[in-house]
Amino acid sequence: MEALITHVTVVTMDENFTVLTDAFLGVTDGKIAYLSKKAPDAAEKPEKIIDGTGMVVMPGLINCHTHLAMTILRGVSDDCNLEDWLHALWEKEERLDDRAVKASTLLAIAECLRFGVTSVSDMYDHVDAIAEAVAESGIKANLARGATMLLPADEFDDRTFPACKELREVTRKWNGFDSGRIKIEASIHGEYTSTAPFWDFAARFAQEEGLGMHVHLSETAKEQAGSLERNGLTPAEVLDCHRVFETRTIAAHCVHLTEEDMTLLGKRKVTAVHCPVSNLKLASGRADVIAMVKHGMNVALGTDSACSNNNLDLFEELKLAARTAKELHGDAAALTAPAALMMATVCGARAQGREKECGMLKVGMDADLCMLDFTQPHLIPCHDLMSHLVYAASGHDVVLTMVRGRILYAAGEYPTIDRAALMKELTEYAVPKAMTPEKKEENHG
Amino acid sequence: MEALITHVTVVTMDENFTVLTDAFLGVTDGKIAYLSKKAPDAAEKPEKIIDGTGMVVMPGLINCHTHLAMTILRGVSDDCNLEDWLHALWEKEERLDDRAVKASTLLAIAECLRFGVTSVSDMYDHVDAIAEAVAESGIKANLARGATMLLPADEFDDRTFPACKELREVTRKWNGFDSGRIKIEASIHGEYTSTAPFWDFAARFAQEEGLGMHVHLSETAKEQAGSLERNGLTPAEVLDCHRVFETRTIAAHCVHLTEEDMTLLGKRKVTAVHCPVSNLKLASGRADVIAMVKHGMNVALGTDSACSNNNLDLFEELKLAARTAKELHGDAAALTAPAALMMATVCGARAQGREKECGMLKVGMDADLCMLDFTQPHLIPCHDLMSHLVYAASGHDVVLTMVRGRILYAAGEYPTIDRAALMKELTEYAVPKAMTPEKKEENHG
Repeated sequence: MEALITHVTVVTMDENFTVLTDAFLGVTDGKIAYLSKKAPDAAEKPEKIIDGTGMVVMPGLINCHTHLAMTILRGVSDDCNLEDWLHALWEKEERLDDRAVKASTLLAIAECLRFGVTSVSDMYDHVDAIAEAVAESGIKANLARGATMLLPADEFDDRTFPACKELREVTRKWNGFDSGRIKIEASIHGEYTSTAPFWDFAARFAQEEGLGMHVHLSETAKEQAGSLERNGLTPAEVLDCHRVFETRTIAAHCVHLTEEDMTLLGKRKVTAVHCPVSNLKLASGRADVIAMVKHGMNVALGTDSACSNNNLDLFEELKLAARTAKELHGDAAALTAPAALMMATVCGARAQGREKECGMLKVGMDADLCMLDFTQPHLIPCHDLMSHLVYAASGHDVVLTMVRGRILYAAGEYPTIDRAALMKELTEYAVPKAMTPEKKEENHG
Repeated sequence: MEALITHVTVVTMDENFTVLTDAFLGVTDGKIAYLSKKAPDAAEKPEKIIDGTGMVVMPGLINCHTHLAMTILRGVSDDCNLEDWLHALWEKEERLDDRAVKASTLLAIAECLRFGVTSVSDMYDHVDAIAEAVAESGIKANLARGATMLLPADEFDDRTFPACKELREVTRKWNGFDSGRIKIEASIHGEYTSTAPFWDFAARFAQEEGLGMHVHLSETAKEQAGSLERNGLTPAEVLDCHRVFETRTIAAHCVHLTEEDMTLLGKRKVTAVHCPVSNLKLASGRADVIAMVKHGMNVALGTDSACSNNNLDLFEELKLAARTAKELHGDAAALTAPAALMMATVCGARAQGREKECGMLKVGMDADLCMLDFTQPHLIPCHDLMSHLVYAASGHDVVLTMVRGRILYAAGEYPTIDRAALMKELTEYAVPKAMTPEKKEENHG
């Protein structure tokens, strides 16, 4: 046994929402090998004992929609409308190169780990650099090469279009890396930023390579209306015509879906990734997750980027998702704490195609977990553990994060990330690179 | 000079939103005695030097609506509607005695201090016990004796009614305590839980004693409709007829005010205390703070109790207030980060009648402040300090809280609160007292 957490409260998030108090959780070969209220046999000599007294262990949270590399632009051009905000950011994003993206991604991963996130679904370009950061850090990630494509149909050739070439390369190089710790996914930035030939390519490529799909869908009322005008169909309907949803798909936001969209996406088993913090900040609206679940969609949670949030603490989404649903339905019982926790764990794992490996704490699953300190004033007393996790706790309460049994964050330390070197790289290279106006080095796309 | 914070970034929240970087803040006799980018004269020998490198100092946050003593009931009967929730809580609250209330209040104050709150406006009964906890802890507080009164008019006598007697006693004993660190306020729990004779008493008593007023107002649509039915007037209109707003008044929630209500309350200079986290959890609705400000009302922020929140981290209200306003108005620029920060500081001080003593960092004001660690991954890089404080930071980033120059929280320690003794009192007395069914000892009111 590599590690044993002793005398800990375990929120398993299994089918029965089992909670074990004063329990023991043992890790062998990166997997949960022991989970019981009984101490393991004395013959088991764990290499490392972690005292869990006063602590709560739960499955690591799964952030199903983010753009990690945007973290170094956090707080740039806040408090303005979605379009002005996007354009101010795009100008700076175009200046980013692989090196800057890698540094920014490592910074973002440090933040994820600090807040108990063990797996992310990311959408961005420079995926090779992002994958390097993921590989080094030990976190799990589904990486999508998000792309815009607005060329006339006869000028688009997937053999030469940069985003398609990059997708092919990173799929070959990274898909399945480290026994599936990294997965590459096909991606369409959005209906409004691309056209049919690209959708056909992305759908076909995902099918051929057995990849998942990651799209932005119906984030704003304008996007929804624009698609109706352009296509006579909603974004969901038109992408469905191009078979985009025939693979496991993450549809980020889904704020403005129609009933018909939900029926369609439910049939296709699409995951809506609810990003309530981002949706409020950009005044996009409030997604109706209760309706989506009723229509058979899977619902997971995402922070979106640090620019629209502005942090990667998924505990904030847990709390706000439950609250927004209550207010939207005028019913304080609309979305309960356990249901919100499902979205951040079990449903997130399903969205990533990782439901057999993580999202629950169960013998045989990967030891992907986080441990929270429940001895602080704001968590005392504890009448209801699930309520506390959703309504009172914060990612800041996480004191340890483990992926595949490996400690990636503990008490302020990041064993796989050299923070001093990262700070130097950020200060001396990445941030100036992003923030200094200069001639454009490459086109977006 | 008692203390000097060196090389720190200071968010003053003064009239010009001045921010000083690499600055020095000195404290003498509990007041800010020095504030400059220049180091003080070497002849000044501070008793204590606090290294502010990488830190941000801002005015202590002011939580303008809470019920501290309910903290030991945090998480009890969550995820149910407002009325069921209130009744489940009331049953337990009736079991609380002075001793349990004091312990619960001390726990709540520890949480406030840990999250950078330096002053609170509380509404509850057992005010003498609450005042004792406030006195011991060193925090500032405006304490209102919230009361319900539904007796027939001819049975109400303020000379014998318990809540009125208690208000008289605590006013005599505590109002102005420690040079105004504690203020007692008159209070009406709400229009729907009391009747005209009590409103008249409260308004008259506040006038006679020069006290402020603290009421719940228009929290739910049901309350608003009920008042129209009972009185032919909104809660704001009917209470105004009874001269309730002729003193400095805090009106908590204000979710369902009409335009006319806002005009009236603006004229009376009433403070609306916006509690967005609580309002979402109880599905009460979304208050329109932008409209209230336009009508001349002062708007401050409150957590409400730990039962409807479920924590006392006012940074969450900062973030959600800005976001809710943006979404409600469909405008991502609707309420900016600096405007939200005003609500939690300057406007809070005004709500409490403390605008001359705190809410800003300025020479001559009380040294009521908190210091945040800006070296953590989620606050790097820092392109926009105000944005970071509102959108990325958390109360958990607070590393030091000071009231009148006295350190009440620093790096996990609470110099004025004996945590071990408090835990013992909570575990052995207060929590069992609240949670164990038994014969009722006294009536509510």
